[in-house]
Amino acid sequence: MENRLINSDTIENYILSNPFIGKPENLYNSMNYIMQLGGKRMRPQLLLLAYLAKENSLNDDVLKLALAIETFHNFSLVHDDIMDNAPMRRGKKTVHEEWNIPTAILSGDNLLTKCYELILNTGVSHKELILKEFTSMASLVSDGQQMDMNMPVKEMVTEEEYLKMIEFKTAVLPACALKMGAIAAGFENHECQAFYNFGVSLGLAFQLQDDYLDAFGAAEMIGKQEGGDILENKKTILYIHALKNLNEDLSKELKELFEANQTFNNSYKIDRVRDLFIESGSKDYLLKLKAQYEQDALNILNPINMLPDIKESLFNFLGSLQNRKS
Amino acid sequence: MENRLINSDTIENYILSNPFIGKPENLYNSMNYIMQLGGKRMRPQLLLLAYLAKENSLNDDVLKLALAIETFHNFSLVHDDIMDNAPMRRGKKTVHEEWNIPTAILSGDNLLTKCYELILNTGVSHKELILKEFTSMASLVSDGQQMDMNMPVKEMVTEEEYLKMIEFKTAVLPACALKMGAIAAGFENHECQAFYNFGVSLGLAFQLQDDYLDAFGAAEMIGKQEGGDILENKKTILYIHALKNLNEDLSKELKELFEANQTFNNSYKIDRVRDLFIESGSKDYLLKLKAQYEQDALNILNPINMLPDIKESLFNFLGSLQNRKS
Repeated sequence: MENRLINSDTIENYILSNPFIGKPENLYNSMNYIMQLGGKRMRPQLLLLAYLAKENSLNDDVLKLALAIETFHNFSLVHDDIMDNAPMRRGKKTVHEEWNIPTAILSGDNLLTKCYELILNTGVSHKELILKEFTSMASLVSDGQQMDMNMPVKEMVTEEEYLKMIEFKTAVLPACALKMGAIAAGFENHECQAFYNFGVSLGLAFQLQDDYLDAFGAAEMIGKQEGGDILENKKTILYIHALKNLNEDLSKELKELFEANQTFNNSYKIDRVRDLFIESGSKDYLLKLKAQYEQDALNILNPINMLPDIKESLFNFLGSLQNRKS
Repeated sequence: MENRLINSDTIENYILSNPFIGKPENLYNSMNYIMQLGGKRMRPQLLLLAYLAKENSLNDDVLKLALAIETFHNFSLVHDDIMDNAPMRRGKKTVHEEWNIPTAILSGDNLLTKCYELILNTGVSHKELILKEFTSMASLVSDGQQMDMNMPVKEMVTEEEYLKMIEFKTAVLPACALKMGAIAAGFENHECQAFYNFGVSLGLAFQLQDDYLDAFGAAEMIGKQEGGDILENKKTILYIHALKNLNEDLSKELKELFEANQTFNNSYKIDRVRDLFIESGSKDYLLKLKAQYEQDALNILNPINMLPDIKESLFNFLGSLQNRKS
């Protein structure tokens, strides 16, 4: 992902030198706190790469767009952390823990308005189109988060529903980032859409890799509780596929293992569910599906006419996802 | 406020015939639920009046702007109700009670994005300026809500801080509504700003009237608990002014009456605080301040060149505030 023109410091420095300024202090401190907690800054980097696929250098306008995308990501983290009762994020207290739930709600609300302020304060061409893309993405992300929250209470979740949920919750944001960069760079409509579609496939592959690592990655590698999704009875693609493809007895056993009112020994539960995910062919199925999305991404990106070193960076980005262990 | 061209049904019908459409159902139901709970629809009416001050008739574009303003108001209600732990709104359950807190957070988030969708989908002139005004208002409203939440834990709140808080929390929204309507109608910059300033003065007068009615209105007239602010130890202008203007003993007594860990008989507390508000001259001071803002509003509106029947409607609107008992 590193490139002669941008690296993760490009974004990090821009974030640090452009904190949100306003009063009351506690509100703006909470907004800058989450923005400065670090992270891979993947989404703004994708936006900048799409821009550099046609333009030779960055400018303040496109950096503002990149900051808007990262700000949106942080808005959704703050609100999601409230909904998930998450105490920690990147080794630090979440906003609602460090402050309180009302301030965290307002912090997210204000971050969302700051995204618009940033975009509106640029002089990029096709600004209105960029605003429309951003707005449509923002609405889909909350749809996706609600779909995710609806999963535990749904009797039956189909694979299609699961994939739609992760598309909205996770994949449309990098897709929109890429499209915004492409629009700002002046790519043709169909090329901008190709960047978007590349981002969706990449985002879906990314989330499936997450699901895989959560179930099968070694605990020390993924930096969170091994089998966390299993312990939380999360209906990921592994669970949905296994339920459908196991024989009646094993399917019933899996269902029981995932019942909220059942208590099993944690390591027994994780091991047994893993076995069932393997026996059902669900692990292989996930890997095949992930490989398919990665291939889709390659196929979409390939025909777009762009500066060669940027195409290479985007391919490398995809490769780094493919090989990541965390 | 009724006018030959618009009345409260104009907005009500537009809201009912333009529900937000999307999935998942529970999320969109919650968004349409709050939108359809009723209310005076004052903010969108102000927007339409400002538009009609220059234009002869309404069109779908300006109705979309009006809907955006009402949608923003409802977004803030949904999130504020979570923060205030409010169980009821307009005689019905609040969104977080009818659904749950996560859905209410998302409902608000999505309503906020829908405001932008509505504005972006219009063909009004000066759309970018309208978006900038809207965005700057949206950020100020969350600043104001945080200021309000900071009040109880602040040792000392000045009158200036209180007025700034109600300006941001309450007054900039009608001000922005008026300005958006004026911009869309093609008023000159200084006229648009005059509409805004009129809205701020009107909003401040409105909030002071609320403070007055809460403390001194009869329970059956104001439709909420008599002296609710007093029982909640809210530091309104009455409290702030009284604390500063009572003699040392009475000031100390008022402070004690407002201490969270003190328990007094409710009707004793309300009656005694009311007496202190009167004795300190705070009641008169509030009424004088409110009259001053109303006069400011008149003075600002008067020189703007506009269709006479609209100016009359705006004056009537101000008058209805002045005389309202609820």
